[in-house]
Amino acid sequence: MDATTKRPDRKKSPVYDCWLNYRPINAPIADAYATFCHSITCVGTSPVIESALSELAYGIQSMLGITPERTQTFQGIAIGIVEQMDGIAFSETENIDEEGYIIKRHKQGFIIAGKQDRGVLYGVFAFLRLLQMKTPPEKIERAECPLNKLRMVNQWDNMDGTIERGYAGKSIFYKDNRFSEDMEIIRDYARMLASVGINGIVLNNVNVHHYETRLLTDFLPDVVKLAELFRRYGIQTFLSINYSSPIDLGGLPTADPLDAAVQNWWCEKVREIYQSIPDFGGFLVKADSEYRPGPFTYGRDHAEGANMLAKALKPFGGIVIWRCFVYNCMQDWRDLETDRANAAYDNFMPLDGKFMDNVILQIKNGPMDFQVREPVSSLFGSLKKTNQMLELQITQEYTGQQKHVCYLIPQWKEVLDFDTFAKGSGSTVKRIISGRLFPQKHCGIAAVSNIGDDANWTGHILAQANLYGYGRLAWNPDTDSRAITDEWIRLTFGDSDKVMDVINDILLSSWHTYEKYTSPLGIGWMVNPGHHYGPSVDGYEYSAWGTYHRADCHGIGVDRTVETGTGNTGQYFPPNAEMYNNRETCPEELLLFFHRVPYTYRLKSGKTLIQHIYDTHFEGVEQVKRYRDSWLELKDLIDTERFDHVLKMLEIQIKDAAEWRDVVNSYFFRKTGIPDEKGRTIY
Amino acid sequence: MDATTKRPDRKKSPVYDCWLNYRPINAPIADAYATFCHSITCVGTSPVIESALSELAYGIQSMLGITPERTQTFQGIAIGIVEQMDGIAFSETENIDEEGYIIKRHKQGFIIAGKQDRGVLYGVFAFLRLLQMKTPPEKIERAECPLNKLRMVNQWDNMDGTIERGYAGKSIFYKDNRFSEDMEIIRDYARMLASVGINGIVLNNVNVHHYETRLLTDFLPDVVKLAELFRRYGIQTFLSINYSSPIDLGGLPTADPLDAAVQNWWCEKVREIYQSIPDFGGFLVKADSEYRPGPFTYGRDHAEGANMLAKALKPFGGIVIWRCFVYNCMQDWRDLETDRANAAYDNFMPLDGKFMDNVILQIKNGPMDFQVREPVSSLFGSLKKTNQMLELQITQEYTGQQKHVCYLIPQWKEVLDFDTFAKGSGSTVKRIISGRLFPQKHCGIAAVSNIGDDANWTGHILAQANLYGYGRLAWNPDTDSRAITDEWIRLTFGDSDKVMDVINDILLSSWHTYEKYTSPLGIGWMVNPGHHYGPSVDGYEYSAWGTYHRADCHGIGVDRTVETGTGNTGQYFPPNAEMYNNRETCPEELLLFFHRVPYTYRLKSGKTLIQHIYDTHFEGVEQVKRYRDSWLELKDLIDTERFDHVLKMLEIQIKDAAEWRDVVNSYFFRKTGIPDEKGRTIY
Repeated sequence: MDATTKRPDRKKSPVYDCWLNYRPINAPIADAYATFCHSITCVGTSPVIESALSELAYGIQSMLGITPERTQTFQGIAIGIVEQMDGIAFSETENIDEEGYIIKRHKQGFIIAGKQDRGVLYGVFAFLRLLQMKTPPEKIERAECPLNKLRMVNQWDNMDGTIERGYAGKSIFYKDNRFSEDMEIIRDYARMLASVGINGIVLNNVNVHHYETRLLTDFLPDVVKLAELFRRYGIQTFLSINYSSPIDLGGLPTADPLDAAVQNWWCEKVREIYQSIPDFGGFLVKADSEYRPGPFTYGRDHAEGANMLAKALKPFGGIVIWRCFVYNCMQDWRDLETDRANAAYDNFMPLDGKFMDNVILQIKNGPMDFQVREPVSSLFGSLKKTNQMLELQITQEYTGQQKHVCYLIPQWKEVLDFDTFAKGSGSTVKRIISGRLFPQKHCGIAAVSNIGDDANWTGHILAQANLYGYGRLAWNPDTDSRAITDEWIRLTFGDSDKVMDVINDILLSSWHTYEKYTSPLGIGWMVNPGHHYGPSVDGYEYSAWGTYHRADCHGIGVDRTVETGTGNTGQYFPPNAEMYNNRETCPEELLLFFHRVPYTYRLKSGKTLIQHIYDTHFEGVEQVKRYRDSWLELKDLIDTERFDHVLKMLEIQIKDAAEWRDVVNSYFFRKTGIPDEKGRTIY
Repeated sequence: MDATTKRPDRKKSPVYDCWLNYRPINAPIADAYATFCHSITCVGTSPVIESALSELAYGIQSMLGITPERTQTFQGIAIGIVEQMDGIAFSETENIDEEGYIIKRHKQGFIIAGKQDRGVLYGVFAFLRLLQMKTPPEKIERAECPLNKLRMVNQWDNMDGTIERGYAGKSIFYKDNRFSEDMEIIRDYARMLASVGINGIVLNNVNVHHYETRLLTDFLPDVVKLAELFRRYGIQTFLSINYSSPIDLGGLPTADPLDAAVQNWWCEKVREIYQSIPDFGGFLVKADSEYRPGPFTYGRDHAEGANMLAKALKPFGGIVIWRCFVYNCMQDWRDLETDRANAAYDNFMPLDGKFMDNVILQIKNGPMDFQVREPVSSLFGSLKKTNQMLELQITQEYTGQQKHVCYLIPQWKEVLDFDTFAKGSGSTVKRIISGRLFPQKHCGIAAVSNIGDDANWTGHILAQANLYGYGRLAWNPDTDSRAITDEWIRLTFGDSDKVMDVINDILLSSWHTYEKYTSPLGIGWMVNPGHHYGPSVDGYEYSAWGTYHRADCHGIGVDRTVETGTGNTGQYFPPNAEMYNNRETCPEELLLFFHRVPYTYRLKSGKTLIQHIYDTHFEGVEQVKRYRDSWLELKDLIDTERFDHVLKMLEIQIKDAAEWRDVVNSYFFRKTGIPDEKGRTIY
């Protein structure tokens, strides 16, 4: 096999290729690389190793203009499984797990090896990344393992071609209630995911409708094809299921998990799936949540509901990922007692220890729903005897919908680094979800993807960084935000220091900037109902969704203290519980989440709350204008297509940020009558 | 022809038959009727007279159990054209116009005659109404003419089967972008319309999309069929058109009304239509309004735009109905100068006298958009040299969406009786639109229908009264609201005094009740954006639609005075202009429409504005509860189906009225901090 022949004959485009665009590298570093890139020896074979070989050859060809020769004897680069690398000694410091990789310098050149074929693929992508970043050969050696076992993306794609909360066009997987026939774009998505270490994908939206229910039956042959494609990139396939499938597909009168016929139906269905997809991952389930069916219908609890599926999957090594996004979405806004923030904890804590060992609870980072700012879910650390994963949202539902630049890695880092104190200091979320704090058989991290069939995948080119960064963080949550942006910018835009500085500055500050001009101090929402874009301060205030700011002319915020509020602070371990419960020690960015505060309250800055709201909203817009101004300085340093695109998006962001500013400021000015100290225009 | 054979063999249902359910009449009055109902003599023939004959026979059969004999010689009832009634003298008091009818007692029985066949049909329906209401034979004589020439319904039906602002199911005309094949229901709709004197129908939504554009071409054969059906009931067919049709259908590069090719295209198209539908009514046009195309695109004004179509229609007697609902729907909410209330006047007044005599401007009753309360459009009376019609909305977009009972006749009566003072005292809207104040060749009244394929036509059975009442008012705007409800209740539910009292009380007070618990004192809106159901006080406050209440912690309302506001009051004639302009003389129900008022302002009741808001909102809900309680007293007086239906709807209304009450009161309490004097619960 000639390694290069498997590459598609596709016109290279940096917009489409994202961080895999493999720009040409010049001398002298190119010459140094040429000394080992002329030949590849591949030890062993498997679909994944074939992908690794193909990627390596393609990257070298693209960056160095060299078509590497495939040789039987090691002359430049050798890739393969560690065990099969006869005569090559690996040291103890290179002790890796089954997904890890070693990049080792050798007298002939480089060895890229893994204990299993997935490690080989990850090693190749890492190696190519190092080349693209012009790493001197002597600094290329690595031995790395992923810290999280499961590193998943969840596609919220519907078979009609829409994507729930998608902001980058239509689905690449489905169209008109059939599977798409364009496998090229799906393969390129698989390449992107594998290049950052993603090892699992859920192919359909957690809200499973008529056609998607039939992924288990009529459309199973299509799922098989995609599973085969993803398998070649080390990515395991999962499906979201409809809990009522035994009724809808099986014609049974019930979907009661304790009903024997239901259990048999699922066992049989699972058996069929594994006949076609021997490495099928399992099911993702949104049950008894936002009108989706689930075990509650039959008076069963979530453990009974999940374990029934888990039993069916267990013989095949499959898992059930059960979402904890369960709350009363028909709350009366007049009800001041019920608190959505308490719901996941209240629902799942009583079940700790009752789930089978192939069930994982998938927990959103915060107790509400992917807001620009909220505390970490109190389930993390509290659940001690249950497998758990963190769910993040790459798609920017509440964070600018890929019209606004909002780089989310810093937000996710705060979540991952959050110390729950569940087993004393150091009980961070990242240690929990990677199975380092409690023994968990299955655990990890998942995120809702942000891609669609848009030419640049993500709607906003700078939003590609969120997908990239998610993968890098999922691999190693200790990675620094800045290190990720450095990498992403260099891989995506090249080496210009100016480009690096400007984009780094924009990305790393963008989340705080977005927060400044949107909902203040952890209160969340304030968006237009339904689509969630743009400001509507009261948009969810008198609704059934449990999302209230309770602003009146005196103050704003939800009292979630133990003494006088909903008791939500009591769900955390000390010292977090006390810290949140006390208005003076509560982190100010979460002040209005946990406390009801008068507008005249003085923040640590010395400003009143109302003045803080005014100031941050004016500042946020000014910061976006500065992004635009600094972007303009890149005119000659970036290709026109991407330069113009980002400029256009920043202009939209300026306009829409001003809308946020003016609506929020006007709302509070009208409500309080307190003028802006600086006399700026408020309507 | 046996008159009865044309009746459909359809199971009678009072829910479906509405006011045409023709309940059996008992002795002794039945015996009196039998003396003349045994035989019908029909003088002359036409499709309309055939319908009249068929309706008469059906009604008699249904009410009296008699199958009238069709006789050549006048023995009981004679129907036909006045001129053809040989040997029957009509007195001068029976001087009617071409649509009028005479019901005349005669020694053989009754003569029902019209100058033209439409009058005969109206006479028959009037006669049947009188029988159903058990009018003594000696009181049955009538000679009546409609006061308005055009009495139209506008269907906002789309070809995909949806109805814009429809609250009674799907379209009866269209399904899946084709015409419905169920002609029975359409024929029954035609019967209902004809029974209350409607003489024109626009078959499709004013927003004309892809498929509807093709009503002029691909679907013309279907339109022909419907036109034929409606023609049999004296109803002329009109179509809403897409102003860009020359581009979309004709492949022309422009739709510029001054372009010769465009003019020719329309002339040819109109000629084709009239070949198939010789009595085609003409076009309804929504142009340059809410993103619809129009002459503005080409730098032409509305007169140029409308006259181009009028020229094409003129040779065939067709008319152009041009809507005045033109305003800036992309207003910046921060712009305090622009006033949507001024827009129609500002757009159309400069064109007065420039329209051809077969163009009619169709003007919504108020300057905004069918709110529960707004002033009358200032165009009425101001336009002196232009044909004009009033547009009302039977479908309850902003008035409870046929979940709430909201009888609109009293609202429309206020509009019709409004004295514009355009030519001194007595220059009422009803005199203007009927052509009695200014000479107009074409004029009248139109309303957006409230029916769909719901089993009871209108979603809420009591909403049938709005369709009935609209027709009766369009026929004679001087009719008293109570007279209309008396009629409708008796025809629909029978003669029980108790039923009459309860339903009369509910209907006649329902508009004020709805107003009480929704938006106060003429300010309007405060609804959820998009679907417009339920309260959202700020729902349209920061939007582009020009609909603002400008509430802050001190006061609420829009200053539309000449001196300090948008000058809207200056569009009215004195003394209305002064009355509206002065806060002390402005009718209180419109206070917040024209004035910005502090919450502490004392109304004539002695209450502060804020207390008035609280009180009316509590009162409104209590009134609906009283409706429910009084409805319960009808349990044994009304069939179960209708009793249960209305009860269920009233329960919904109570719940949703309470939602309005609590959201509006909470909004203002939170904003003002002023407590309710009576200490009731506000959240």
